[in-house]
Parts: sequence; C-alpha cells; structure tokens
Amino acid sequence: MNTNIKKLLEGVRDGSVSVDEALLAIKTRPFVDIGFAKVDLHRSARQGAAEVVYGAGKTPEQIVEISRVLLDNGQQTVLITRLAPESAEEIRKALPIDYHASARIGIIGETPVPSGIGRVVVATGGTSDIPVAEEAALTAEALGSEVVRLYDVGVAGLHRLLSHLDEIMSASVIIAIAGMEGALASVIGGLADCPVIAVPTSVGYGASFEGLSALLSMLNSCASGVSVVNIDNGFGAGYLANMINHMEVKA
Amino acid sequence: MNTNIKKLLEGVRDGSVSVDEALLAIKTRPFVDIGFAKVDLHRSARQGAAEVVYGAGKTPEQIVEISRVLLDNGQQTVLITRLAPESAEEIRKALPIDYHASARIGIIGETPVPSGIGRVVVATGGTSDIPVAEEAALTAEALGSEVVRLYDVGVAGLHRLLSHLDEIMSASVIIAIAGMEGALASVIGGLADCPVIAVPTSVGYGASFEGLSALLSMLNSCASGVSVVNIDNGFGAGYLANMINHMEVKA
Amino acid sequence: MNTNIKKLLEGVRDGSVSVDEALLAIKTRPFVDIGFAKVDLHRSARQGAAEVVYGAGKTPEQIVEISRVLLDNGQQTVLITRLAPESAEEIRKALPIDYHASARIGIIGETPVPSGIGRVVVATGGTSDIPVAEEAALTAEALGSEVVRLYDVGVAGLHRLLSHLDEIMSASVIIAIAGMEGALASVIGGLADCPVIAVPTSVGYGASFEGLSALLSMLNSCASGVSVVNIDNGFGAGYLANMINHMEVKA
Amino acid sequence: MNTNIKKLLEGVRDGSVSVDEALLAIKTRPFVDIGFAKVDLHRSARQGAAEVVYGAGKTPEQIVEISRVLLDNGQQTVLITRLAPESAEEIRKALPIDYHASARIGIIGETPVPSGIGRVVVATGGTSDIPVAEEAALTAEALGSEVVRLYDVGVAGLHRLLSHLDEIMSASVIIAIAGMEGALASVIGGLADCPVIAVPTSVGYGASFEGLSALLSMLNSCASGVSVVNIDNGFGAGYLANMINHMEVKA
Amino acid sequence: MNTNIKKLLEGVRDGSVSVDEALLAIKTRPFVDIGFAKVDLHRSARQGAAEVVYGAGKTPEQIVEISRVLLDNGQQTVLITRLAPESAEEIRKALPIDYHASARIGIIGETPVPSGIGRVVVATGGTSDIPVAEEAALTAEALGSEVVRLYDVGVAGLHRLLSHLDEIMSASVIIAIAGMEGALASVIGGLADCPVIAVPTSVGYGASFEGLSALLSMLNSCASGVSVVNIDNGFGAGYLANMINHMEVKA
Amino acid sequence: MNTNIKKLLEGVRDGSVSVDEALLAIKTRPFVDIGFAKVDLHRSARQGAAEVVYGAGKTPEQIVEISRVLLDNGQQTVLITRLAPESAEEIRKALPIDYHASARIGIIGETPVPSGIGRVVVATGGTSDIPVAEEAALTAEALGSEVVRLYDVGVAGLHRLLSHLDEIMSASVIIAIAGMEGALASVIGGLADCPVIAVPTSVGYGASFEGLSALLSMLNSCASGVSVVNIDNGFGAGYLANMINHMEVKA
Amino acid sequence: MNTNIKKLLEGVRDGSVSVDEALLAIKTRPFVDIGFAKVDLHRSARQGAAEVVYGAGKTPEQIVEISRVLLDNGQQTVLITRLAPESAEEIRKALPIDYHASARIGIIGETPVPSGIGRVVVATGGTSDIPVAEEAALTAEALGSEVVRLYDVGVAGLHRLLSHLDEIMSASVIIAIAGMEGALASVIGGLADCPVIAVPTSVGYGASFEGLSALLSMLNSCASGVSVVNIDNGFGAGYLANMINHMEVKA
Amino acid sequence: MNTNIKKLLEGVRDGSVSVDEALLAIKTRPFVDIGFAKVDLHRSARQGAAEVVYGAGKTPEQIVEISRVLLDNGQQTVLITRLAPESAEEIRKALPIDYHASARIGIIGETPVPSGIGRVVVATGGTSDIPVAEEAALTAEALGSEVVRLYDVGVAGLHRLLSHLDEIMSASVIIAIAGMEGALASVIGGLADCPVIAVPTSVGYGASFEGLSALLSMLNSCASGVSVVNIDNGFGAGYLANMINHMEVKA
Repeated sequence: MNTNIKKLLEGVRDGSVSVDEALLAIKTRPFVDIGFAKVDLHRSARQGAAEVVYGAGKTPEQIVEISRVLLDNGQQTVLITRLAPESAEEIRKALPIDYHASARIGIIGETPVPSGIGRVVVATGGTSDIPVAEEAALTAEALGSEVVRLYDVGVAGLHRLLSHLDEIMSASVIIAIAGMEGALASVIGGLADCPVIAVPTSVGYGASFEGLSALLSMLNSCASGVSVVNIDNGFGAGYLANMINHMEVKA
Repeated sequence: MNTNIKKLLEGVRDGSVSVDEALLAIKTRPFVDIGFAKVDLHRSARQGAAEVVYGAGKTPEQIVEISRVLLDNGQQTVLITRLAPESAEEIRKALPIDYHASARIGIIGETPVPSGIGRVVVATGGTSDIPVAEEAALTAEALGSEVVRLYDVGVAGLHRLLSHLDEIMSASVIIAIAGMEGALASVIGGLADCPVIAVPTSVGYGASFEGLSALLSMLNSCASGVSVVNIDNGFGAGYLANMINHMEVKA
Repeated sequence: MNTNIKKLLEGVRDGSVSVDEALLAIKTRPFVDIGFAKVDLHRSARQGAAEVVYGAGKTPEQIVEISRVLLDNGQQTVLITRLAPESAEEIRKALPIDYHASARIGIIGETPVPSGIGRVVVATGGTSDIPVAEEAALTAEALGSEVVRLYDVGVAGLHRLLSHLDEIMSASVIIAIAGMEGALASVIGGLADCPVIAVPTSVGYGASFEGLSALLSMLNSCASGVSVVNIDNGFGAGYLANMINHMEVKA
Repeated sequence: MNTNIKKLLEGVRDGSVSVDEALLAIKTRPFVDIGFAKVDLHRSARQGAAEVVYGAGKTPEQIVEISRVLLDNGQQTVLITRLAPESAEEIRKALPIDYHASARIGIIGETPVPSGIGRVVVATGGTSDIPVAEEAALTAEALGSEVVRLYDVGVAGLHRLLSHLDEIMSASVIIAIAGMEGALASVIGGLADCPVIAVPTSVGYGASFEGLSALLSMLNSCASGVSVVNIDNGFGAGYLANMINHMEVKA
Repeated sequence: MNTNIKKLLEGVRDGSVSVDEALLAIKTRPFVDIGFAKVDLHRSARQGAAEVVYGAGKTPEQIVEISRVLLDNGQQTVLITRLAPESAEEIRKALPIDYHASARIGIIGETPVPSGIGRVVVATGGTSDIPVAEEAALTAEALGSEVVRLYDVGVAGLHRLLSHLDEIMSASVIIAIAGMEGALASVIGGLADCPVIAVPTSVGYGASFEGLSALLSMLNSCASGVSVVNIDNGFGAGYLANMINHMEVKA
Repeated sequence: MNTNIKKLLEGVRDGSVSVDEALLAIKTRPFVDIGFAKVDLHRSARQGAAEVVYGAGKTPEQIVEISRVLLDNGQQTVLITRLAPESAEEIRKALPIDYHASARIGIIGETPVPSGIGRVVVATGGTSDIPVAEEAALTAEALGSEVVRLYDVGVAGLHRLLSHLDEIMSASVIIAIAGMEGALASVIGGLADCPVIAVPTSVGYGASFEGLSALLSMLNSCASGVSVVNIDNGFGAGYLANMINHMEVKA
Repeated sequence: MNTNIKKLLEGVRDGSVSVDEALLAIKTRPFVDIGFAKVDLHRSARQGAAEVVYGAGKTPEQIVEISRVLLDNGQQTVLITRLAPESAEEIRKALPIDYHASARIGIIGETPVPSGIGRVVVATGGTSDIPVAEEAALTAEALGSEVVRLYDVGVAGLHRLLSHLDEIMSASVIIAIAGMEGALASVIGGLADCPVIAVPTSVGYGASFEGLSALLSMLNSCASGVSVVNIDNGFGAGYLANMINHMEVKA
Repeated sequence: MNTNIKKLLEGVRDGSVSVDEALLAIKTRPFVDIGFAKVDLHRSARQGAAEVVYGAGKTPEQIVEISRVLLDNGQQTVLITRLAPESAEEIRKALPIDYHASARIGIIGETPVPSGIGRVVVATGGTSDIPVAEEAALTAEALGSEVVRLYDVGVAGLHRLLSHLDEIMSASVIIAIAGMEGALASVIGGLADCPVIAVPTSVGYGASFEGLSALLSMLNSCASGVSVVNIDNGFGAGYLANMINHMEVKA
C-alpha cells in the first residue's frame, strides 16, 4: 500500500495526477461500494485463488450481486460461508453453486488445484464436530490447499488418534477441532512439530457452556505451537491454515 | 445410625433407659463438643485407620487438643491437612508429628500397613501440580492404601504417559491431577478401566483463571468413569480413592 | 494393552507375525471403522454386559448399524443414551428396542441379572430431576447393578430424606442428583459412608444459571467421599457407580 | 417524613415558619454535615438503641468525631463495623470502646437490654465462618436483640445440627451463615418456620470463587422463607434480623 | 418436632406405642406419599391458611390429586404457582380454580381475610415487572396479608416513587421488584424503616444478563434492612413477606 | 423543580394555595397516571421536540393511548422504540405512523427540522449492526439532530474507515456501533476530537458471548472521550448524542 | 488531518515539497519519538490547555522527559495520572509539581481559568469513592472546566442527594461515581436533563466483584442520557465531561 | 516417530534387538528422567537451535541440572522463561547466563544467526505490554528468527501504527500484543497479509478483568489470518512465530 502512495505522489509531482484525484484515489481505491456493502477487491489480489463472502445476514440477491462483482473482477472461485440452505437454493437460480449443507458453505466457480508446502490435516474429537471441520476443510481447499480429514479421533480413545500418527507427523499445518474438554489440541500439539490451529466447538452440554470449556482448554494448552480461533470458527482456521501452508511462496 | 435409634427405643421400652436420657443420647452421641469445635467420633468408626483434621483456621493449640481427643478415643493415625509450617513446629512441641511441607500435611501416629483392593495411582500433568498430588497421596496412604506416584506425565508429551501404561492399566483407582488445560483426566480415562478421580489445580496463568479452565475440562471429559473434585482438593481425591479402594471390604 | 504389544513383539521375533502386520495390528486393533464412526470393541471387553452408544447427533440408521456391529461381536445389551423418541421409533423397525421416554434411553437386548458388591442408590432433590435420575438408574441397571430409587427427597424437607436412612446407610454407591442449590449431595455425603457421585441438574431458574449453582455447590461439598460429574450427566454417574459397584470383581 | 412536610407546610401557612426556613428545613434536616461525611440522625430515631458507623475507609479521628456527634444527639450505643484493630487502639484514647477483634466490631456505650419478639439464632456451617457470625450477632445484640449462637453445625455432619432442633424451632429469626456449598440455609429453611436470613461467606477455596458458590446456592434455596444478603455481610443480616425481631413493636 | 419425639418416647415407655410403630411414626409422619410426590402436611399446620403447590413440571392430574389431598386434610386455600394456562384449563374441569394469567398462579378455595401486623407493599420499577409482582402479591394475599400495589415507580423518574411516600413509610414489609439496574431496592431501603425484600427480574436486555445485573445490584445495596431472593422469584418474596407480616402472632 | 417548590410554598404562605393542595401538587405534578402507566410530561418539556415511548411489553392499544395523551399535551413527535411490526400495523389503524422495520422504530408526527451544534455521525463495523444503528440514527433525527450514516467501516479493512476521515473529523458527536471485537470505538476515538458514544452489539458468535466481548472492549478503550451504553442500545446512544449536540442551546 | 494531507499534496505539486519529504511528513508528523514512548503533540493542539500523561508503568525520569518535551512545545499544563507518591517526590526534584495523593494525580504548570458552557458536577455515592472522584474533578479542572463536588450523596439516604437538586439541575455535565450497587447514576439520570457520565468504582466487597456490580447496574440504567466508562476511570470521565462542557466552542 | 517404531520392529525381526530392549526403547526413548523432571530430548531434534525450559516453579539447582543435560546432549542454546531475577543470579554462579529482566528470560549459550522466510514483527499497543513483547521477541530470536520491534503503536493513535506500514506489509509473521481493548490485532490483521498471532496481556484495570477483555476481543477479530494464544503468553507466540517463519525449510 505504501508503494502505491509513493507512486501516486510521484504522479502528483509529475502533473499526471491532480491533487484532488490523488486524494480521491487514496480514499476509494481498495473497495467497490455497491450500496449495501463495500466489496473488498484488495484482498483478492493478496490471497490466492478464492475470495470469501460472509453469508450470514445477507439476502440471496446481495450475495449474487457481490459474487458477480468479484467474478467480473477476475475472481475464479467465490466461497460463501454461513449460508442457509434456502439462500443457496435462491442463489442457484442465478449462478451455479456447489452447496455443502453440513458446513453451510457454498462455492461458485472451480476449486483450484492444490498448491502449497504440504497438506493441511483437519482432525476432530467427535462426529458432532464435523460441520465445523467441513467449514475449515472446504475453506482451505477453496483457497488452494490439499486437505486430509481425520474425524472422530478424540482423546478418550487414544488408539484412534495414534493410528493416524503418519498423517499427523507429515502435515504442514493441523487444525484440531473439538468441543467438550477440547483436549485434542494439546495431544496433537505434543505429537506434531508443525503449527496447530485449535478450534473449540460449541458441541457439548452442561458445563461445556457453549464452547467455553473447550476454548479455555485450548488457550491453556501446554503444548507449544498451538494457537486458537473463535468457537466454531472453521472458516478462520481454514483460512489461516492455507495462509501458513503457502508461506514459502512469499520468500 | 438407624439401628442405634432402635436399640435406644428398646432400652426405653425395657425401662433400662429413661426418656430424657434417650432424648439426650439421640442428640449428643455422635460428637464431642470441646468448645471451639465438635469432634466427630462417628466417622473414625466408619473409615479405617485414620481420622482427618482440617488444619486451616485452627490454632496449633486447638489442633493438639482435637488430636488428643481422637488419640484418647482409640485413633491410631491423625491426619492434619492444610497445616502451615509454623503451626507444625508448634504442634511438634506437644505431640510427635511427621510434617510434609509441600503437601502441607502433618501426620500424628503410624501410617497403617496398606490394605485394599489394589493400588491407587496418583498422576500429575506437571511438576507444579506435585503439592496437590502429595496431599492426595499422603491422605490415601494415611487411610490405608498403597500409592504409586506418576508425576510430570502431561499430555503435551504423550510418550511420558504411555511409558507408564503398566501402572495405569493395573491401578484400582487413578487420581489425575492437572492444571492449565486439564486434559490428563480425559486421556487417562480413555486408557484405564477403573474409576478416575480428576483434580483440577490452580496451576497456570492467564486464561487458566485459577483452575477454572482445568475444572471445566475435566467436567466435560468424554471418557467414562471420570468424576471431579474441587480445584486443588488433593485431600478429597485421596479420601475418595481410598474409599473406593476398600470397596470389597464391605461386601 | 502393554501385554498385547509384548505378545505381538514376540510373534514378530518368532516370525509368526510380519513387521507390517504387527504395525497394522498396533494401529487398528481396538475399533471397527464403519465409515461414519469408529466402533470401540475394546471397551465392551472391559466393562461387563452392556455397551453404550451416545445417540445425540446420530441418525437412526447409524445407530442400527453400530448396534448390529456390537451385537454381532457378542454384545448382549446395547444401551443408547440421549435418544430422541422419533429416532427410537425408526430403530424399532429394524431392531427390538425398549425405549424410556423421560430418560431418553433405549435398550436393545436383555438387561442383565444384577451383580456387584451391593446396591446403587439413585436419589433426587425434586421431581423435575427424575429424567436425569432415570438416565443414571437405567445405565447402572443395563450395566449390571441393582438400583434403588429415592426420588423427591430434597433437603428443604429433611424428614423425607431421613425416612430413608436405611437405604442410604446400606448402599454401596449413591448417586445424588439435584438442581437449584444442590445441597442434597452434601447432606447425603455427611450421612453415608460410601462413595457419593453428585450430578448437578439444569433444573431451576434465575440464579441457578442452567445448573451452575448446583455444580459449584457440589464441587464445594464439605462432606468427604463426594465427587461430581457434568450437569445433567446421568449416564456418566450411572456408568461410574456401576464401575465402583463391581470393584471387588477385580481383586 | 411525609408528616413532617405537612407540619412544616402548616407552619408556613401559620406564619410560624418562613418560606426560606421551610425550604432549608426540608433540605438539611436529616443529617449533620461534618465536612468529610453527612451524619444521618434520622435513622437513629427510627431503629432502636444503636446507631451504626461503617468503619472501613474512615480514620480513627473521623470515627471519633462522628461518634461524638451521635452521642451528643442522644445516641446511647454506637456500633462501628469493619474496624481495624489499630484504629480501635487509636479510638480508645479518646472514647471508651469495646472491641471485638474477630468480628472487627467496636461498641461505644452500653449494649441495650434485649427486647423484641423472641431470640435471634445465629448458626454457622464451620468454625471459619465465626468472624462473620460474630459481626451478625454483635450487631443484633447492640441493636437490642437476644442472640443464640450455634456454631459449626454444617450439613456434612447433620447430627450436629439436629441436636439443636429446640433452638431452631423456637427462634424468631435465624441467620444461617456458610461458605463453600452454603447448604446450611436450605436445611435450616426446611426445618424452621421463621424467616431465615442467609449469609454466604468467602470461606473456601477453588470453585468456591470467593463466596460465589455459597451465594448462588442460597439464592436457589428451595426452602421457603429464605432470603440472602451480600457475601460476608454479617452486619446486614444482624441489622435485618433485629428489625424483624422487633416487628410487633410497630403494630 | 422435638416435643413430638418426646411424647412418642413416653408412649413407648408406657407401652402404649410399640417400638416399631414409634420408629415408623418418626419416619413417616410429616408427609403423605402419593406415588409421584410426597405431600407435606406439616407445613400447612405451620403457615396460616394456604398451602402452596409448585406447578411447573406437574401434570394437571397430579395437581388435582395433590390439591384434593390437601383439601381433604383441612386446607382452605391451595395456591398453585408457575401454572401454565392450559393446565389451569384442565384443572378447572375437576376443581373450581381462580387463574391469574400474568402471574401464572391458580387459587383453589377462598382467599382468606387479611390479617397480620400491617400491609405488604409490592413495588415495581417498570410495567414489565408486573407478572413477577403479581406472583408476589397474590401469594401474600392467599396466605393472609393485605397487599398494596405500587407499579411502575422506577428510580429513573423519582417523583413517581416519592408521590407514594405515605404507602412506603407505613408498610410493614416492602417487596421491591426491578430488572435492569435494580436500583429500586436501594432507594426504597433508604426511605423505609421496615424489612425490604428485593426481587431481581430478568426484565432487560444486553448487559442485564437475564437478571444478573439487578441481582448483583440488590445484593450490594448500601441500604440496611434489604435482603434478596432469586431472580423472578415473586412467590418466595410473597411467602417471606407474609411470614414477617405475621411475626407478632408468634410472641 | 426546586423553584416550583418555592413558588408553591409562597402560595401556601399567601393563602392562595391550601396545604393539602400543595402536598398534592408536589406529589402528582410530573406525570399523568393513565392506569397501566404513568406518562411523564415533565421530560417532554425538557428535551426538545420529541417524546419517547418504550414499545416492548406494551399493547398497541396502550401505545395509542399514551401517544394521544402526549399529542394532546402539545407533543409534536412521538418516537416509539422496540416496536414489533404487528403492533405497528395495529397502531396504524388509529394513528398515522411511520414504521422502520429494521430499527423496530415507529414515529408519529413530523420529524423536526435538524438543529444543534453540528452533525451526529453514526458508524457501524459491519452490515449486521445496521438495525442498532438505525435505532440510534432515527432517534437522534426524531429529537432534532442531523445524522450522517457511515455503515460497514469496520477496522479489519481500515481503508474503508479512513476514506471517511472528513465526516469523522467534522462531527459534533460520533456513535460507534460494533459487535464482535468492538475495536471501532477505539479507532474512531483516536481519530476524532469529539465525544464518541460506543454501542456494543450482540452481533457475532462463540466468544462474542452475546455482545460481552464488544462491551468489554469498548469499556477498555484507551482512546479518550469514549463512553459506552448497553449492548444493542441504539436508542440510548441516539438520545445522548442529540443531547450533547444541543449543548450550546443551554448556555 | 485531511486538510494537512491536501496541503502537503499541493506542496508536492508545486515542487515546494519533495515526494520523500511528503511521505516522511505523513508518517512522522503527529508525535515525537523519544525512544521509550511516542509523545503525541497532535492531541494537545486539539484539546484545550492541558496534556495528559498516564503515569502508571513509567519511571520518574521518563515522566520528566515527556513533560519537558510537552512544555517545550508550548504546553501550559501537564496532567499526570496514576502517579505513585514516590514518583511524585522524584519528579519534584526536577520540575515543580502539585501532587494530589488520594487522586494520585500530579499537575505541572498552572491550572487554567475555567471556561466552557457551565459547570461539571462530580457526585459520589460514598466517601470511599472520593479518590476516583478527585481524579475526575482534577482532570476536568486541569483541562479548563469549573467543577462542583457533591460527595457522599448515595441513594440509600435520598435526602442527601435531594438537598443538592439546585446543583444537579443547573449542571452542564454530571459525573456520577459509585461502587456497590451503582444506583446513583440512574437516580441522577432521572433527575437531571444534561449528559450523565457514570463511573463504577471497585468500592465494595463480596458480590460487588471488584466493581462489576456497579458497572452492570450503570449500563442497565433506565434513565436516558447516561453513558458509562471503565471501573475506577475517573480520568476518562473528567476528560469526556470537559469535552462536552466545551461543545459550544466548536460551533 | 512411526518410522522409529518400524525400524525397531525390523530390528526385533532381525534378532539384533531383543523384545524387552524394544519394549524399553519404545517407552524410554524420548526423554531423560532426572528425578524431578523428564527432560525432553526429542523436541530439541525437531525445533532448530534452542531448547526451552519453563523456569517458574523450578529451583536454580534444577534449572542448572536440566540445562547441563541439554548442553551435554548437543544443545547450543538454552532458553529459560519465567525466570526470577534471584534465580538468574544463582544460575550465573554455575553457568554463564544472559538475563533479560523485563522479559524474565535467561539465555545460556549463543543466540543463533537468524534464518527463516523473513522477519517476525513484534508490535505492542502500549509501553506496559513490553515485558510480554520481549518474551516473544527473545524467544523467536533464540530459536533463529530475525525480529523487528514496533512498540507503543496502539490503535488510539492510529498514525503511530500507520507510520510503520512498511514493516507490517513486509513481515512474514506478526505478533500483535495488547491489553485493555486488544484492538491492535484486528487492525494489524486487516492491514497485513501474513499470519498474525495475537497475544492478549493482563495490562489494564477494571473491566479489563486481568486480560479477559483483550482475549475476547482478539478471539472475535473480524480480520482473517488472526489466531490467539493465552494471556501474557509471549513465549508461545514467539515459538509459534518462529515455527511459521521456518515453514519453507520443511518442504
């Protein structure tokens, strides 16, 4: 961004850009204002193949319009998170959409060929954590990562997890997803030597307090290399995992 | 207790006990009132060799007096918990006391020969949990159980725990003690097939919230056979473990 | 488990087991992977007659399939917890199931003849706690314990509890279930000389905060021998009670 | 107060009181402003023999000055709560004071002869609750009630409480003081047929969360006739108990 | 209760009561067990005209049966709290019932002629608190107190409250009911010289946290003579207010 | 109010006002009691053009009646907050009402011509915060302020906010509305040199805990000039903003 | 700030400013970096006479250095908050400082002659709130406002507050400071017709939870025109009050 | 780890390793048990140059012994976190140690030459956050990363942060450290296109609740690519940042 300002200033000095135009450019560049939202075109330039739309609270018409702006600006894949099934139905009438009901994710366009350092492992403690896991996995895939799914490998049956040591030891990033006591993140963090992104889920009852128990557990993980995102935030974990998985591209 | 009332009533019918004596007996039987406390002599009849005194908030003089009442009533071992070192020094002037500084436990009398179904395993996640663990272990020993200590076997280095599978699989009861994320209880609960008593500790910082994180974690354990006592309550866990370890005596 | 590894290693040395077979065995032994879940066959070998399926979040078809795998592997009783009535109806079409609506428990197969050290007493503070109590009681019965039910004996009318002193004094384990102030666990813990498993319930309103009040109360019980499971976790209490009630079998 | 305004207005009409005097009277009547505090002389007219000074945060000099204003206005007893021992020493140099160290209460003047409907029973769960109990008991006594102390009668040893049924059944008000699980209030509330004022204390550790556990417990009491004051608020309970104990005086 | 035991023991001595009969009597006296509930007949002997049934979680059939047991035992008024309108409709088919929809209270029998020391004032901060207030008011009336209602007198418009100083100053007990910031209890507590029972309500939004804000506010009231019951517990406040309002009867 | 009392007292002295009339006047002046509510006519005299009715929990009939009392007393605009769409429909049959569905606000009468020091800027972090923002904006407009809306300018895309520096720097008051992490208030507080009223919203999920996260964030803002109102309290912010925006009128 | 950028851009176009100089200017203008801190010189231009230094965590030497930079840049008054007495002693050796111990505030330079719309009233519930109140009052005074102090006017003795109606009704802004139940803000908010800034304090014990009770109370105030700052944040309230008190200057 | 097991099994088959030796190897390989701790030598093989010792709760003697075991096993740098100054003094007598007092970190051995993808930026909101920041920075440096420090760039003075856009845009990983409202993470997350590790600190007072406010804020960050570690966990952030900064080495 800094570079752009410098170029703009040089344009002003050269006379090729007026002062007011420059001021305007600094202000309005990074997004397209389509009335009900400000579509961010900067980010798509920065983060690989896909652009993400947060679907909750948007009407199908709004999502269609935003998607069209993105596709018109060269976006190949549009990922829509927290998308209700009825909205997906509506959107389908205007644009071809691939809808994943349990993850509540819709994808418009092609999922890119996987790239990156290695593979992203998505592990869950139980079967009830799968919707969050699929949100994470589909996000990472849509952004260009290969994903390995290890579901229902919670620590109460340690053999289930230990039978997948190969996948865990060879991952470039691991997303550990669990509700209730959230111990999965610590155990995986102790086994693996790559970054572990912990996702607490609201799965559980009673003293799980809607995910608080798992959240605190994961924040207190005594394993190094573990960090945490919000409760049920599969998207955030998938996005960050893909970002880390593409670290070498930058150097 | 019921039986006693019946006997008393029969005495009343027989005329060997007067009505007022009976009424008095029903009221005053189970404890000796020594002014500042009501010493419970019933419990010592029920629970094996040792009687327990909660040391916090009692003066050394009071503890000496209570201990003497207990010893005079046939108690062989008196266990004093939450005992400050200075108090222990004072008590030593009056009675021979074996003081364990890290556990803050004092023992007057002989530790009994271990009995019970099997062995009580006391496991901790880290070295900082050892004071709580020693409170649990010394309590169980003073009450008549054999104790195996497995310290610093937290889940972030799973191999440390797995190298002690023998002890875990052969325990009659396991006390799992951990602060921070408290995952130890779930992992042990998944490996063992005996009752697991989980003790959250206040070890940690930040989002451990003085043991709340470990407490919630353990309450949400998805392993069966796990129950929880109060934060830092080593005594309660040792007491219950010994009780379970002597279950067969009852039948 | 350790013994099994040793045997396997001896097989490898003898040549009767190939290295890859051994590796595979270590990894895959304890469960059957049926796609959507990993059915644990180890546990059924360890814990008496019944195996437990957590019904919440599973389709009737999945429950039927898991149950069949279990029955095919020699299981006599399958206990399904947190089972919705509509799911029970569906399952009934495929397998004979005994459904208990208030406890939301389904049982496939025969309830075993009671065994164990003695009787498990299940006590509740009020009538609203009965669904949780039935979950506990049916679990303990399905696993092989005799159960005595003492419902609506809350401490606000102490005579109701005291009129059942016989049952309380002669129990091998007591499950104390209460919402609101949760005082039942402490009072029973003070009367009984056996392990007491406290189950806080979400019964109440206002400052009961969905069971938090009863949970904290029970964790702070000043009676010895009391431990706590998660809010509304009748199953966990029943499972642990049965485990303790069968302690002598082990020695 | 209303009556006073009416009289004042009649005085204004009669000309015996000027408008400005009346305005001033309405504003300044109820307290004496001594610079650092506004001493309330109204209250002493309303509530029997003693006036109360909250000692925390006041210098000994300020307390002496306030006490003198009160004594000069006809107060016979001045009760000073939350009074540090060093402050008591300082005050003693100026005024004769009876200081109760554990309760942190100082009394200047004579404790009145007890009056009221009956007796106020002050009961505690343990010996650590005694300082709060003494604050309650001394307050009620200084305000004119007869007090019966029942200390260390917690529910974990129910016989200790049941041996005092006479006192409980014949009380006019009961103050039930307990930390940890706070069950005492419910049990007493179920036994007694008079108002029960529950005082949670900060006694305990871990999940007692500085009295929160006892507070929630007491608020959720399923016994009727129980109300609650702030954690460790012995004064508030003693004040209210005395007020209720003098109800008949009003009619 | 103590007296009864003594009489029973004298009967045993005289031979007019057998030992087993006595034991049974001690156990079973205070309630009638009608299967699904233990109806407490003791309490009706103790607390004036009405007996109370907690309606939540009971079927209409159960309520009818309990009510009949009570009426058959001489009860004149039966108060049913937390009663759903549909249940009231069902009950009406069996027994004449006076149902108050906003308070969710049903009354079977006649409301007694008011007695007691004076009047119970029920005040609310807003109009949304009225259902809780009506629960309190109807309870106090059904138990035999005269009730004065002061609704919508919250502290944000102080003149509304001050215009009712007469009622406040002449009350024997005041029930102060408020949600949101719950300041009403403190202001009334400062004005009145009688016991104030504070009832926090769950009225509000956001940081009212379902009544927590009002609850904490009321517990911290700096006015003397204020005590608190559970959030939305109109019944508890009405019951206690009536009890205090009948204090002089006892002496 | 003080002045009025003085005048009244002078009337009493002069004989032009009787004592009882004066007493009555003091009591009843500031509101009209229409049975179910006490309509405050004082406030309308104090705060510009509009009077506000809190619609939640009131029937359409009650709202109509209150509105008529206000209009009959000279009110030009009546603002009804928290008004359900069905209620608005009902009210429309009796009175012309302008209903804003997302803000749940109804306006009867004309919106006044804007006055005040300058403009009130209403900014939101995201599009989901718009309902709260509209409640704030419409309130400020109905009370007489000019409002500038800056929606969807959250800090995660800082350029969106920075492109509106002009509006921010020239505002007289800014209302910063955000859920989730609530950082908008701090960033605007650091940029602007006018009072900033922060409104946390319940927008978010997981660890947003219904607005708690944003609330704490805003309370801890390290920018000076920021204060906070309740979660989702758009009305309160709009009311206060308008009040500040009319400060100069007073001097 | 925008204007400055525009001027800079015009300078670039004119050739009077080089591109790199402009870039540097944009970056470095608003503060002086003195190694351990970035001294903000912008703010002093915006907010009247005084500049504020947050003293906590800074050494006396650092404070002296920052103060000198400010004074050298034309600042007339430097206000240092949260300043320990020992630090004040050290600073006094280098610069003349006026230290207010209870408020922990130091002032270097002259307090300006009061200006602004009217007077800022600072009111407290009790005497223990005075340190926070003095922080607020001294801040507002140092920034150029006239302050009226009304201390110890808590709602439990309403007459104390009502005797100051004159000051309350004529204030331009009121700062309401209270711990415990925090009701003062609501009562003042209902009486006054100017903005009320509520400051919860950590004064209290037990269920005041270090100011949480007062904080929630104030956030839920049902009086309009009330907003809230952080617990014990006297400075923030004084700063905002002064800002509002100078609103008319801006127009 | 899997590979090692396979090799071991092949050794067993070949006869070069006995069964018992293999069993022992599997158990004891990864750590050295030195009595009071189990020193993990595995991890040093995995994570670059330095090994980390958690200093809290360990005696200087224990730290010296652990450090010697590590150095004897080829470790070049030993990083000791949470090290008290007195302990550092003691250790210095036995081993040359470089102690950083504010970060409470000691380093034995040489800090390695920086390697990795790029630079780790460590940014703080205020000067009080610097101790946590130094813990993060020194950890990352000791493990082999180049670190850029941006301290005191909190969002309340946005220009301070924006003047460092160059560093932010060119970082490979950013550690955003802030207390109070914790908004720094979101703002940086919105500006940068690399992983952002957010560290909440316990800096603040009142409603910061020891870091809870910043923690919740950061978990709710609406910027993508942000994850969170425990409050004050500078070490965890530095460790993870270094891990991500060395991602390309792995591929």
